Amino acid sequence: MIIDCHGHYTTTPPQVEAYRNAQKEALKSDPDHLFEKGHIDVSDDEIRESIAQNQLKMQQDRGTDVTIFSPRASWMGHHVGNASTSQAWTEQCNDLIRRVCDIFPDNFVPVCQLPQSPLTPIETSSAELERCVDQMGFVGCNLNPDPSGGFWHDVQLGDRYWYPFYEKMVELDVPAMIHVSGACHHSLDTTTSYYLGADTTAFVHLMSSDVFKDFPDIRFIIPHGGGAVPYHWGRFRGIAQDRGLGDLDERVLNNIFFDTCVYHQDGIDLLLEVIPTKNILFASEMIGAVRGIDPRTGHHYDDTKRYIDGNSKLSEAERKMIFEDNARHVYPRLQV
Amino acid sequence: MIIDCHGHYTTTPPQVEAYRNAQKEALKSDPDHLFEKGHIDVSDDEIRESIAQNQLKMQQDRGTDVTIFSPRASWMGHHVGNASTSQAWTEQCNDLIRRVCDIFPDNFVPVCQLPQSPLTPIETSSAELERCVDQMGFVGCNLNPDPSGGFWHDVQLGDRYWYPFYEKMVELDVPAMIHVSGACHHSLDTTTSYYLGADTTAFVHLMSSDVFKDFPDIRFIIPHGGGAVPYHWGRFRGIAQDRGLGDLDERVLNNIFFDTCVYHQDGIDLLLEVIPTKNILFASEMIGAVRGIDPRTGHHYDDTKRYIDGNSKLSEAERKMIFEDNARHVYPRLQV
Repeated sequence: MIIDCHGHYTTTPPQVEAYRNAQKEALKSDPDHLFEKGHIDVSDDEIRESIAQNQLKMQQDRGTDVTIFSPRASWMGHHVGNASTSQAWTEQCNDLIRRVCDIFPDNFVPVCQLPQSPLTPIETSSAELERCVDQMGFVGCNLNPDPSGGFWHDVQLGDRYWYPFYEKMVELDVPAMIHVSGACHHSLDTTTSYYLGADTTAFVHLMSSDVFKDFPDIRFIIPHGGGAVPYHWGRFRGIAQDRGLGDLDERVLNNIFFDTCVYHQDGIDLLLEVIPTKNILFASEMIGAVRGIDPRTGHHYDDTKRYIDGNSKLSEAERKMIFEDNARHVYPRLQV
Repeated sequence: MIIDCHGHYTTTPPQVEAYRNAQKEALKSDPDHLFEKGHIDVSDDEIRESIAQNQLKMQQDRGTDVTIFSPRASWMGHHVGNASTSQAWTEQCNDLIRRVCDIFPDNFVPVCQLPQSPLTPIETSSAELERCVDQMGFVGCNLNPDPSGGFWHDVQLGDRYWYPFYEKMVELDVPAMIHVSGACHHSLDTTTSYYLGADTTAFVHLMSSDVFKDFPDIRFIIPHGGGAVPYHWGRFRGIAQDRGLGDLDERVLNNIFFDTCVYHQDGIDLLLEVIPTKNILFASEMIGAVRGIDPRTGHHYDDTKRYIDGNSKLSEAERKMIFEDNARHVYPRLQV
């Protein structure tokens, strides 16, 4: 079985964007507008069609089986509006993910976004995580380390601010993928400098912190192949050593996992060479940041299964770890 | 000949730090204090000793010949104080680099920092570049894309704000290494998340801009192996294609060069595999961010010559390009 741990619902029916646009419109006249959840009128058929012709078709074309599926990351937009804006939007997005997974129970497993919002206690996210996991069968969440959209106004991930949420993750035995949303900072570009920079920044927060001492069983997935981290593993090992943080592998690799959203063979080969196999989870982020076909290969850039298949050093057992076993370890609630 | 294109004077005699601390002290009582250049009382013997036991010794130990040498990057501190603070500090730092290169003319070649400062026109940097190149024989400069120290207050590198400086670079026929300074943002760590994120961000600014159309002969070195860029070359190629920017190699590789400050064999192997040899310049950033010895190899993490030597695919001609020829092309004023 091939489990893709990183897929977003990027192909929602237009009513979803209309709901979000109505929120933004209301905020223009009243930034403190208190939002209610309301309703998005989308039929099961519309959801079915939005998936069947897109993510499901590409799963089948590429020979993968199951996608761990969450709301569109770049649309989480935690910086937009106030706490009630994010709460209503998040619940709607998570409900939609649940419906996708009900319609295609063999192909998609739900992961939730969180109602993070500037100046909002993290406890609202704990409550939504509980709703999604306990009541709706979700297996994980996407945690945004920078709800300010590129300004990094919030405290580092090692700060006690986040601890109630980490406690909830451990209690529910679910991991978090650390994933920022769209950049609203003029200097950053969402799917390149912001995503990759945020992945690297989140790793540094965690490696410098006591989070894994305080939560020895917590599990984080750093997406996009870990940003710059595996390419600079020697730098990070050396800096950990210089700063008295000990051996980097021992310090972080019980708790941090990297996905395989690296869109060329050489990048994947580096990831597989540098990072222990047990810490790598197959992922494509299809349909996501890169949608074209690579003229050098004739295949989609984000068809990452080809790169795992194309690596010459992996044994079959190791390949199975990356495609399946590691995901089952990191997401123990996954029942597929 | 082996030319290391990335070394900083990180071992200055204590009077240099004292000069800077006096500036900071003066700013405490008067943020608008107008600084004069003043004097740093350092003898030639003190400079000789600070280099001979450090960078020069390690050059000899490692078998490299010449270092393209600039002021300590993390101390440039363009966010500190006002324009006169940065002007005085920068002139002092550049004068010191000139003295190092006068004392060791066979081993060090000077590159300058710039008197960038928040809300200061870039023309002051053009003037200092001219002083350093025309009057003092410098061969290049370090350009800071984020003088705000992690807040990225300034406009992107493609903005016309920077164009007068680019014109001066082309007129003088010198390249710029794009290098941020110390982070003063609470979320960033200088030598990991900030440096690597800034390298990636600068690349995105340039690839998204018209700078290379408007300045077809301009040359930038992106340090630290290009941040996250070569590891994600497939992502960047695909995104350039999706956005109608054309073939990424054609778009940027006449003007952008990467150094080899990647501190493990697998990272260097990726860089050499993905990026054309003509775009790679040997560098170590010794003595810099990572100072320890890798217990896996028994050698310094930043002894990057070993990784170039250890790559199994390079021909001797390609190795010579990386060690010498490419530096002569990118820094045409280099006479060693």
